[in-house]
Amino acid sequence: MEKQTRRKFIASTLALTAGAAVSAQSLMTMETQNKKQLAHHVFFWLKNPNSKEDLAKLLDGLRSLRKIETIRALHIGVPADTEKRPVIDSSYSASELMIFDDLAGEKVYQDHPIHQKFIADCSHLWDKVVVYDSMDV
Amino acid sequence: MEKQTRRKFIASTLALTAGAAVSAQSLMTMETQNKKQLAHHVFFWLKNPNSKEDLAKLLDGLRSLRKIETIRALHIGVPADTEKRPVIDSSYSASELMIFDDLAGEKVYQDHPIHQKFIADCSHLWDKVVVYDSMDV
Repeated sequence: MEKQTRRKFIASTLALTAGAAVSAQSLMTMETQNKKQLAHHVFFWLKNPNSKEDLAKLLDGLRSLRKIETIRALHIGVPADTEKRPVIDSSYSASELMIFDDLAGEKVYQDHPIHQKFIADCSHLWDKVVVYDSMDV
Repeated sequence: MEKQTRRKFIASTLALTAGAAVSAQSLMTMETQNKKQLAHHVFFWLKNPNSKEDLAKLLDGLRSLRKIETIRALHIGVPADTEKRPVIDSSYSASELMIFDDLAGEKVYQDHPIHQKFIADCSHLWDKVVVYDSMDV
């Protein structure tokens, strides 16, 4: 092992031991590699916001996206119970947050058959979608 | 090493070898630990959206937040150059995406002196902020 690899290896092992693998590793790697990742965050407003069944279908659809190989991290969420403040928009039904290595990775995702199937299967469930694509600076 | 730890250890080593540490590690750990993390995503619209100086000040302020100990991952971004689509909002000037372990971690961040200093130093720069807090499901 060359020196840098060994250092990373040891750091990774320590992080796992400490039970904080994602975090320490993510922060370290982002900073040391100075990698400009892309965050793709999509918010969905259901046509029937009170339908637990429709929400479950949408969440299942979102989970199917996990198999797309260029997705580096995926969070599927619902509004969190943080302190209410006027600047917080918690009116959406569900959200999907994906991290890609670069623009090309996001393009592969957009065109991927699994993503196209998700849209075909689930788009009747929502009546509004807002997307934010942010590139690391 | 017990079996699960060893499996994680090996997987981690493989991920590092493949040069995809953040991603593989994040996905694996999120899935195996079934951890419900919180994504806190904030979008800022500058009062002077064409001022590179104001953008630089805001980005510097956002970078100062990195020291807050409950932040598990931090992406500071600007609108990405993805394909233009009507659902994409790229009108903001800068964004901050943070991952916390839980609601308590986000509360520590909100009340933290470094965060309060950021608001005091930088809030004159923006005229709109939108926040989305999403809890993993």
